[in-house]
Amino acid sequence: MYRTHKLNELRLSDEGKKVTLAGWVSKIRDLGSFAFIDLRDRYGITQVLIKEKDLLEDIKKISKEYVIKVEGTVTKRSSVNSKIETGDIEVTAENIEILSSSKQLPFEISDDNIQNEAIRLKHRYLDLRRSKMLNNIMKRNQMFYSIRSYMTENGFLDVDTPILGKATPEGARDFIVPSRTSKGDFYALPQSPQLFKQTLMIAGIDKYYQLAKCFRDEDLRADRQPEFTQLDLEMSFVHQEDIITFVEGLAKKVFKDVVGTEVTYTFPRITYDYAMENYGSDKPDTRFEMKLIDIKDIVKNSEFSVFNEAKYIKGIKVNSLFSRKQVKDLEDFVKNYYGAKGLVVIKKENDEVNSPIYKFLNDEIKNELESYIALENESTFFSIAGEKNVVLNALGALRLKLANELNLIDKSKYNFLWVVDFPMFEYSEEEKRYKAQHHPFTKVKDEDIKLLEENKLEDIKTDAYDLVLNGFEIGGGSIRIHDANLQSLVFDRLLIDKDEQENKFGFFLEALKYGVPPHGGLAFGVDRWLMVMLNEDSIKEVIPFPKNNKGQDLLTNAPGEVDLKQLEEDLKLKKIVDNNK
Amino acid sequence: MYRTHKLNELRLSDEGKKVTLAGWVSKIRDLGSFAFIDLRDRYGITQVLIKEKDLLEDIKKISKEYVIKVEGTVTKRSSVNSKIETGDIEVTAENIEILSSSKQLPFEISDDNIQNEAIRLKHRYLDLRRSKMLNNIMKRNQMFYSIRSYMTENGFLDVDTPILGKATPEGARDFIVPSRTSKGDFYALPQSPQLFKQTLMIAGIDKYYQLAKCFRDEDLRADRQPEFTQLDLEMSFVHQEDIITFVEGLAKKVFKDVVGTEVTYTFPRITYDYAMENYGSDKPDTRFEMKLIDIKDIVKNSEFSVFNEAKYIKGIKVNSLFSRKQVKDLEDFVKNYYGAKGLVVIKKENDEVNSPIYKFLNDEIKNELESYIALENESTFFSIAGEKNVVLNALGALRLKLANELNLIDKSKYNFLWVVDFPMFEYSEEEKRYKAQHHPFTKVKDEDIKLLEENKLEDIKTDAYDLVLNGFEIGGGSIRIHDANLQSLVFDRLLIDKDEQENKFGFFLEALKYGVPPHGGLAFGVDRWLMVMLNEDSIKEVIPFPKNNKGQDLLTNAPGEVDLKQLEEDLKLKKIVDNNK
Repeated sequence: MYRTHKLNELRLSDEGKKVTLAGWVSKIRDLGSFAFIDLRDRYGITQVLIKEKDLLEDIKKISKEYVIKVEGTVTKRSSVNSKIETGDIEVTAENIEILSSSKQLPFEISDDNIQNEAIRLKHRYLDLRRSKMLNNIMKRNQMFYSIRSYMTENGFLDVDTPILGKATPEGARDFIVPSRTSKGDFYALPQSPQLFKQTLMIAGIDKYYQLAKCFRDEDLRADRQPEFTQLDLEMSFVHQEDIITFVEGLAKKVFKDVVGTEVTYTFPRITYDYAMENYGSDKPDTRFEMKLIDIKDIVKNSEFSVFNEAKYIKGIKVNSLFSRKQVKDLEDFVKNYYGAKGLVVIKKENDEVNSPIYKFLNDEIKNELESYIALENESTFFSIAGEKNVVLNALGALRLKLANELNLIDKSKYNFLWVVDFPMFEYSEEEKRYKAQHHPFTKVKDEDIKLLEENKLEDIKTDAYDLVLNGFEIGGGSIRIHDANLQSLVFDRLLIDKDEQENKFGFFLEALKYGVPPHGGLAFGVDRWLMVMLNEDSIKEVIPFPKNNKGQDLLTNAPGEVDLKQLEEDLKLKKIVDNNK
Repeated sequence: MYRTHKLNELRLSDEGKKVTLAGWVSKIRDLGSFAFIDLRDRYGITQVLIKEKDLLEDIKKISKEYVIKVEGTVTKRSSVNSKIETGDIEVTAENIEILSSSKQLPFEISDDNIQNEAIRLKHRYLDLRRSKMLNNIMKRNQMFYSIRSYMTENGFLDVDTPILGKATPEGARDFIVPSRTSKGDFYALPQSPQLFKQTLMIAGIDKYYQLAKCFRDEDLRADRQPEFTQLDLEMSFVHQEDIITFVEGLAKKVFKDVVGTEVTYTFPRITYDYAMENYGSDKPDTRFEMKLIDIKDIVKNSEFSVFNEAKYIKGIKVNSLFSRKQVKDLEDFVKNYYGAKGLVVIKKENDEVNSPIYKFLNDEIKNELESYIALENESTFFSIAGEKNVVLNALGALRLKLANELNLIDKSKYNFLWVVDFPMFEYSEEEKRYKAQHHPFTKVKDEDIKLLEENKLEDIKTDAYDLVLNGFEIGGGSIRIHDANLQSLVFDRLLIDKDEQENKFGFFLEALKYGVPPHGGLAFGVDRWLMVMLNEDSIKEVIPFPKNNKGQDLLTNAPGEVDLKQLEEDLKLKKIVDNNK
């Protein structure tokens, strides 16, 4: 037997017991006539005391991260360590066996002095020995189990859908998998199980959930990975309110199980339009105020031509002053990343309000403006004028940037929030056509179906909702279209021609003709959700084996080369090359 | 609100209540002055009575599988239906709304008259409405939750490992995924999370499990799919006995939750050698006896040259007689599929034993043989002589075939069984080298390490074990090698050269150098396991959306064509073509 106890188990009440322990050597202090080893496993740490001469000789071979087995007797400790569960005792060693040695470590197993990401990912098995990472893995397990218990208690069936699927339309790029048996054809890895879950509703499953692996071949960033985990759920015979109520209960349960505290408030709900107009974002971080202030009516008739021509003029107020250099940097930020034409600054310093644009404003406008934005002393107002989307997005980003840089965000707060009434379509300047803002299966609000029929796409709202936590969209969903004709009309409006409809969605349009319950659901990005709950900066901290930002697994060196013979078989090279001519 | 009650909920105690129900029209009987609808959902069936004139007119539009909403009053039923939970009541309709219509069905929603597989898979959303299939989906959900509860209660962490991985060595063919960012490289979909789970043990996770999706690009058959679900588990600081004990508890718990009855016996254990010698299979179905009888010592010195030369002479006994045509078919079976040279038949008919080979046997041998095999009247003994593997495999297959055809198997029995002490290597005639019978990470028995060092591979046994249920291997595992040098020696013995070791396993051989706990585990094929528990003939009956035997998803038409632009980007055609020159 390798162990009689785990390393968090022994107590003073075990004094005198013969025990066998096994684990990693976390610390070793050789004091000559005696020595201590801190022995570590997943559960905790137990101190081992070595006094016997032979053993003192033996342990000279042992260094950090060796795996050893210790037989000994539980003894009371002279100096108690209240930081660990076993801190009242130590085990006086009678025998020590080396189970596995360790060579020199590339980095210390410690939560201080964290190494660069590449080294951590390459030696993930060492990185995961750090207590913070072990804790994250355990929290992830806890979150998964919490979700599954709640869903099961509420009558949801866990139904697994295929990974080897069909190319998904609309959305990100698919990963593809060549088929050996179906010559020249490819599977696609799912971006989400959307059509399968709707198919399950048509099958009568009534309540479905799945913790599903999803895949997107997109450029990566801190909160995106090529493969990620989605809590996917769908319910039949429900309205938006039923789903929101259920999911709110779920989110509170998971929060309690993972973070350990209760969320006692009802999640606020705001519309998409309200979120955009007031926060410049459809996933606002409401842990700080700094709402967008509309000054168009006040300044539109000034001598400042930028203001005269602008469709939107809004600004945000910060209790801080900025140097010329700082203002220039902020202006570059909104110009370069969000296409703003400029950044207008109004500041109040030494009780005096001033601005480079004041020469264009008459006293009446100045007075009205100052009274409206009500700047406190030592404060700044940043304003952007221009097209609606540019103004809102740029100010939304500026708001976040300033709040982060000025430390205005209370990191101990967790602000949940529903954003509802999303538009059905958004116009893509790039493709010169309307695209579905969520996805084409989203139910248009009953009162807006007329607009859809009349092809007035700009103003159509949907029964779609996002769940936002601290400025991150952690979940999103909608009531779905359950009528084949309406679904087909949406495809028409998206300029998907009938051939493409048949090719990509034919099976689903067919399924919609055999008795479909009204249904809707939601999908959570569980990696991101966990990241936010654990206050981590990257989803890589909460995924056991993540890829780096180039999509590589540095542990195993994936992706890698493949045998040419397999390539030829899989890819039917000749056929593909011929097709390309 | 679409419904106040599900369709299994209403009872006599609800009499007089106004209720709203929604579901599928399962049956409709229009008797002129009144009509009945059987309304169905996932939970049950409730009878709706239609008496009002307008409603009787309205429901003429309704046919089977329409989705409707019914408002009405719970009333006592005149003729009770004890087959359904709501059989004491009916709901007298006051209003009926069609939520979704259904066109003519391609097949009846019924457990009788099952259609061919292709039609069922194409309309899986209808197939899953059948009560048997719905039950299978619910049992699958129950099995998953049962597993997760048990693993969680026992301190196992659910840790998810990547789907986009590195090509797996040894074993079946990989599915590959071209990488867009890493030019010309490929991910591989995992055949199992073997190296990741061992890496997790090195990371100190101690107890890991996962319901993992695994992938093998093999030719398909009834109990194989290109993607399947594996319960993968691994434990540290354990011996074989610890794992077997734990897994036996798990299997009993899952059995009880899925089948509903208790397995009260301790699972028998037999060695691999015993299984092969007695059943001609390493996964014997022990629900019937018919063990292999060794007659070599008795007949080896007869005049029959086949017997003189054979290394193995064994046979099985069946309480049945066979026509010449039947014997010929059985002989063809063992010849064509298992390479047997012939099939020797001895039969006892009208109390007389006879055989075509009797002319070669003297009376002494005949007597000894008859006394040894002790044929009852109207019985047959089938014997095969030849090489060990041919004799055992052919008789094992014949044993199963006869038992199935003669209905000798008690289908109500569930025989669990451990097979232990598997060989480490098996010789591949095809590749002219030894291959790992399980996988190269399996721990050689301590006493056989010497044989490994001496390169005597034939007789090496391992700490590997399979769990067998009714003749199916439902799980298999082993204690793993936790020593880098021993692991490397096994690779050497498998003739994997150092370059290939470094390329394929380099990261893992490196990980084995940083303090590795002794560890081991097991993997269940949960689809097959569930199939056996539910007495189904194919895993397609227990997988929500299976592929057909050509690897196609007939519902969505995957695999399919992919956009040429994506192909060019993904596959770096030029590079691949250049490499092929």
